Amino acid sequence: MQPVRLSEVDPETLKRIKQRAAGEFGKVSEQARAIMQEVRERGDAALRDFTARFDGVQLESLEVSREEIEQGLREASPELVEAFKFAIDNIRKFHRTHVTAEEEHVETVPGVEVWRVWRSIERVGLYVPGGRAPLPSSLLMTAIPAEIAGCDEIIVCTPPNKEGKIHYSILAAVAVLNLPNLRLFKVGGAHAIAAMAYGTESIPKTYKIFGAGNPYVTAAKVLAFSEGMVSIDMPAGPSEVLIIADASANPAYVAADFLSQAEHADDSSAVLLTTSPKLAIAVAAEVRRQLPLLSTADRASNSLEQYGMIGIVETIEQAIEFANDYAPEHLEVCTENVDEVLPKLRNAGTIFVGNFTPEPSGDYVSGLNHVLPTGANTKMFGPLSVESFGKKMQMQRMTAEGLANLRKAAEVMAAAEGLPAHGRAINIRFEDEQH
Amino acid sequence: MQPVRLSEVDPETLKRIKQRAAGEFGKVSEQARAIMQEVRERGDAALRDFTARFDGVQLESLEVSREEIEQGLREASPELVEAFKFAIDNIRKFHRTHVTAEEEHVETVPGVEVWRVWRSIERVGLYVPGGRAPLPSSLLMTAIPAEIAGCDEIIVCTPPNKEGKIHYSILAAVAVLNLPNLRLFKVGGAHAIAAMAYGTESIPKTYKIFGAGNPYVTAAKVLAFSEGMVSIDMPAGPSEVLIIADASANPAYVAADFLSQAEHADDSSAVLLTTSPKLAIAVAAEVRRQLPLLSTADRASNSLEQYGMIGIVETIEQAIEFANDYAPEHLEVCTENVDEVLPKLRNAGTIFVGNFTPEPSGDYVSGLNHVLPTGANTKMFGPLSVESFGKKMQMQRMTAEGLANLRKAAEVMAAAEGLPAHGRAINIRFEDEQH
Repeated sequence: MQPVRLSEVDPETLKRIKQRAAGEFGKVSEQARAIMQEVRERGDAALRDFTARFDGVQLESLEVSREEIEQGLREASPELVEAFKFAIDNIRKFHRTHVTAEEEHVETVPGVEVWRVWRSIERVGLYVPGGRAPLPSSLLMTAIPAEIAGCDEIIVCTPPNKEGKIHYSILAAVAVLNLPNLRLFKVGGAHAIAAMAYGTESIPKTYKIFGAGNPYVTAAKVLAFSEGMVSIDMPAGPSEVLIIADASANPAYVAADFLSQAEHADDSSAVLLTTSPKLAIAVAAEVRRQLPLLSTADRASNSLEQYGMIGIVETIEQAIEFANDYAPEHLEVCTENVDEVLPKLRNAGTIFVGNFTPEPSGDYVSGLNHVLPTGANTKMFGPLSVESFGKKMQMQRMTAEGLANLRKAAEVMAAAEGLPAHGRAINIRFEDEQH
Repeated sequence: MQPVRLSEVDPETLKRIKQRAAGEFGKVSEQARAIMQEVRERGDAALRDFTARFDGVQLESLEVSREEIEQGLREASPELVEAFKFAIDNIRKFHRTHVTAEEEHVETVPGVEVWRVWRSIERVGLYVPGGRAPLPSSLLMTAIPAEIAGCDEIIVCTPPNKEGKIHYSILAAVAVLNLPNLRLFKVGGAHAIAAMAYGTESIPKTYKIFGAGNPYVTAAKVLAFSEGMVSIDMPAGPSEVLIIADASANPAYVAADFLSQAEHADDSSAVLLTTSPKLAIAVAAEVRRQLPLLSTADRASNSLEQYGMIGIVETIEQAIEFANDYAPEHLEVCTENVDEVLPKLRNAGTIFVGNFTPEPSGDYVSGLNHVLPTGANTKMFGPLSVESFGKKMQMQRMTAEGLANLRKAAEVMAAAEGLPAHGRAINIRFEDEQH
């Protein structure tokens, strides 16, 4: 991987880098749709068939038993259990600050009082990647905000392995979390999303589905959303990082962070933009040195070849402009004048500030949520949060005087929109006075 | 319309009432998809063709000129202009309370600081129904939160009439709002949504699309969302009200409110639940009396026939249970013990409290937003708000000590997930110490 001047990158390469693997899930939409249709029609029977086909196992019960969860906890090392406890504490600590109590009551007009109240979503569905790449951290990142939001029921789906088992690390995470209203099911892929969107005999219908997965999972989530009966957190795709660094950054650190993103999958993205040609060259050398040390070197070099770039810019402003357009999931800022840079950054999932804040520290234990928009979707979506697991209701209370105060304006606007009964519903409350 | 005991309603009718016209937009998905594809490929040329076909006019310019907007303002009555000013003031007053400044910084672990910052969405698209049923209030309800959020560019699409003109009431609303960063285009339907999702020569691509429209508009919005490059506010459908009333309510008022919802369209819904058989009978009589007085009587009686109900319940608890499952857009509570009822209500867009708070008062001028989820979607979506026009970014800043404090847990979890470079990005920052 050679450093390049950003201004000299050919337009086609730049387009590929900026587009990255976003929206690739569209290619499997039709397969996902067919799978979902079967689940809608045949329920659990379809889930068993797809699990046999895709995961290679014929399941008896779809729900994970209490005994299985306890067995998983016994298989986990004490260090892992401690790590989960530490992560859970920090995630709870940060996410608790999101909760909004009842809001300010506003008297917009004398006698007219309006405000909003918070309500959690009653039943939510969480998807946790499993199988060959179990991600217990994804369980923590989705279940903890659901817990703090106060959701009544938390349905979790994750695919089993060929023995019909869930990876002990996910089971241990469930055990340590210890939420009485969480139920875990051995179902993955588009069929798991269909089950949570429509409901089956075993799996209750949920109202909003959370968590990232493979392209089938993402395709199924957006299809379920498009039918209008379930919401989703966001259409998340392959992971990505953009690093903005100047001469003050440490090339070995930057290279390690760069690679930690690239190792996720063949379609991950990692981009470095720096004002220092010297740093660019040093980071490239460090990437060459560190890459072979990784068991995930193949994935990392594949993704860097397609979607990686070490770019040299003239000014930090240019890097900021690129970042706001690239709109990365993860953004590291390793520059001297951090406090001048941060206010200008507009689109990112999480911003990691300074030389001692590597991106992976936010993936697990710092307390931040790691479910973030990708593929430039940070232009319009935020990170997963407690707010994602509830919604506001508007409230309005008026006195007769309040209604009198807004009567005229409401009637005029109702008439302009050709809705006479709208005006009449207000009018009629003053007719008595005329008797 | 005869009152019925809720417990005696046959299951099929109950299912139709509860389902109402939700999700009907799915039936026009394929047509919407074809229209969108053409706009994506042919841009403005496709927009002109569809406008000729659907609106019956061949347009020169797609953008509404400053002169046209001023002409609209001249055509509006002084009363309407005053009503707009009054509404705008109140909507601004309420929506300003939504804005969240920078949040609390949390030190989850010594040396680990995490927080969130707010950023508005740079370019948003608003859809305003026009043509035969122009809804200037929808412009106010979408543009004002975009203004308060601080969106840089506000793109508005609304269909023209056969003369190629926008209704003066919408033009006047734009003029009174007077937002320098708002641009208005003469395009409606699925092609307008496609233009805002993909961008054309005239209409810039937006990142999130807001506002309700006909089924083609809704179908196009969810299709655009499902492609992963644009967000939407919510999949909104036909309007609806649920009224909970006891013997203390006024039957003439309740009937007027009931009809004000039913008049919206042939597929609107209006349901009354009351513990008082006497009130039920009186409301039914009032509906019969008031209905013929409306110029919209046909629409109102059509919708009541399909999706209307005056239901008698044994207890207020039964009404609350029904309401939380029905999850209405608008919910009126006209009971004596309001303060006992409100905390138990979970799923509604706006709740109107008491006998002097008719639903239409919240449609226009009380300050509340009237863009609300429908079709039971209040189970998972909230009303449109300033928050809908922005998103948070997570921030993390650590000292070397902070990183040391979470090092162990992060490394253990990275190893459990098979991501060595994740652990290494943390490790490497401590290697220097060992030299």
